[in-house]
Amino acid sequence: MSKGSIEEFKAEREELNQIVMQYADLGIKRFFSLDSQAYREGALPPKTKELLGLVASLVLRCDDCIKYHIIRCDEEGVASAELVEALGIGLLVGGSITIPHLRRALQAWDELQREDGDA
Amino acid sequence: MSKGSIEEFKAEREELNQIVMQYADLGIKRFFSLDSQAYREGALPPKTKELLGLVASLVLRCDDCIKYHIIRCDEEGVASAELVEALGIGLLVGGSITIPHLRRALQAWDELQREDGDA
Amino acid sequence: MSKGSIEEFKAEREELNQIVMQYADLGIKRFFSLDSQAYREGALPPKTKELLGLVASLVLRCDDCIKYHIIRCDEEGVASAELVEALGIGLLVGGSITIPHLRRALQAWDELQREDGDA
Amino acid sequence: MSKGSIEEFKAEREELNQIVMQYADLGIKRFFSLDSQAYREGALPPKTKELLGLVASLVLRCDDCIKYHIIRCDEEGVASAELVEALGIGLLVGGSITIPHLRRALQAWDELQREDGDA
Amino acid sequence: MSKGSIEEFKAEREELNQIVMQYADLGIKRFFSLDSQAYREGALPPKTKELLGLVASLVLRCDDCIKYHIIRCDEEGVASAELVEALGIGLLVGGSITIPHLRRALQAWDELQREDGDA
Amino acid sequence: MSKGSIEEFKAEREELNQIVMQYADLGIKRFFSLDSQAYREGALPPKTKELLGLVASLVLRCDDCIKYHIIRCDEEGVASAELVEALGIGLLVGGSITIPHLRRALQAWDELQREDGDA
Repeated sequence: MSKGSIEEFKAEREELNQIVMQYADLGIKRFFSLDSQAYREGALPPKTKELLGLVASLVLRCDDCIKYHIIRCDEEGVASAELVEALGIGLLVGGSITIPHLRRALQAWDELQREDGDA
Repeated sequence: MSKGSIEEFKAEREELNQIVMQYADLGIKRFFSLDSQAYREGALPPKTKELLGLVASLVLRCDDCIKYHIIRCDEEGVASAELVEALGIGLLVGGSITIPHLRRALQAWDELQREDGDA
Repeated sequence: MSKGSIEEFKAEREELNQIVMQYADLGIKRFFSLDSQAYREGALPPKTKELLGLVASLVLRCDDCIKYHIIRCDEEGVASAELVEALGIGLLVGGSITIPHLRRALQAWDELQREDGDA
Repeated sequence: MSKGSIEEFKAEREELNQIVMQYADLGIKRFFSLDSQAYREGALPPKTKELLGLVASLVLRCDDCIKYHIIRCDEEGVASAELVEALGIGLLVGGSITIPHLRRALQAWDELQREDGDA
Repeated sequence: MSKGSIEEFKAEREELNQIVMQYADLGIKRFFSLDSQAYREGALPPKTKELLGLVASLVLRCDDCIKYHIIRCDEEGVASAELVEALGIGLLVGGSITIPHLRRALQAWDELQREDGDA
Repeated sequence: MSKGSIEEFKAEREELNQIVMQYADLGIKRFFSLDSQAYREGALPPKTKELLGLVASLVLRCDDCIKYHIIRCDEEGVASAELVEALGIGLLVGGSITIPHLRRALQAWDELQREDGDA
């Protein structure tokens, strides 16, 4: 996942979201609104919330959701050791069936760390 | 999902089904037969059955199954507003983890609507 | 599930909902509000929406959710033949792992039919 | 799970199956027929098939299905060491979320072994 | 979940764990050992790890696992507002199918808060 | 899945495993170690264990995991009729939602059989 690939991921996500919004009824729009609000600062900091979203996405095995939260974790300043412990809990709870997703999660994380190192 | 891409989807599905049938034992063949019969006219019309299959596929998060039922819903004359309400129930029951699949579902639906408009 | 047992189910559900609302933040309250709105009359009639909720609940294998939608289907005047076809699609999509839930779904439905017959 | 409790489990299962068959349409009846045929002697012996059904039930976390296959494994002469290795694979693949089901699986197995010892 | 009911939950868990350990092979024993180590102090504090375990358990819908992490969250001094935000993320990610588990999670939490208030 | 594609699958898996190991903490490393040990000769032969892993992967619908176990089943000398019966149990337990994965499983198996025939 090079910077280009992350931009590509974000661009495709944005493009598809526009199709969703074009068709969405009020219920779907409200769901998307709830979704964007849930990870904001509250009793728990955004960093913890993104880790919660990441682990939930790992045990439910959704690559797109995992990649999104990996990017958000990087933006929120999660350290590699913290991310790995969170993923480790997801692996343990969700079992070896999560391993292919864990691999792709760490591949994305690795690319982000390289970029951060370059910047 | 251009018309070409739908034809491609159907062609690949057909090709793989032939491999399945080449290896399938009686049990698997009977399962496939049950599957094709389940969505036929009965106490419920095919349109409702396809919506049931679509929502079940969305909450279980299977892109191939979703795309198949999206195509079938279009063939059965489901209206956009009906499809969106059904997807909205799937989103609510299945949660934000279904969103990437919802995006691809509506992308496919959008392509089919454009084709229908062209025809 | 005698009438008493249905009343008991509803009473326990109500009691637990009160605990939820006592602790719920705005996000959870809005989610519950979305949930109650999703099954109302729209492009699709409530009857179809309840069948969608039922099949989604069956393939995700949640007994409480199934029982709730079974009761709602009965209230919306779903016929046995319609309900059985919807459950049959859920069984086919979700597999034999749904059978214990299918059994309890039809047990509840059977009790409701006896009550309706008595009334 | 004393012998009485196993008898109770089987009796309840039988009772609910009768309700299912009272309402079932042809599709559901055929599904149940396929289900009973799938575990019969074939290229694989019933013992292996029951272990396959058990592990599938464990990773999908269905207590009733697990108990059923535990009873069948005992009837097919599966040894404790074999059963435990199969469950261990299910635990690894499915993760710690399967542990409560693993506990109940081994509780049932333990009761069956005591009965077999008594007989 | 009165104090007695929590003690009961713990006692039953302990009793079943003894049966597991009586049958467990080395692989299962090592898995249980990994499981107990994963939630210890590390780069992330135990409090955050318990919230991760709780949300993973909620989206995978395992009542026993949820109750266990609810008890552990209480022991680690998680505040109600923090717990509710974490559960809210689980509800959003996992959808309305998690609601029955959310109800029971907050029922258990409510009982623990009453006990803590009494002590 | 030509021989090249299998080599490609293995190469990508190896490459990603190296990224995992670069970031992995002790818990994740131990989990991977447990995973590689679980399928070794024991009370059950590796062939049976691979079939168990295959069926668990099919009902949980993980294409990478399925392909891995398909390759291992071929290496362990599983016959087509045995493989098909195992997949048939997975199809029945997991339902029609597994069909797209079943198709890809048999496509991979078919390629391996052609290669074995060529060798």
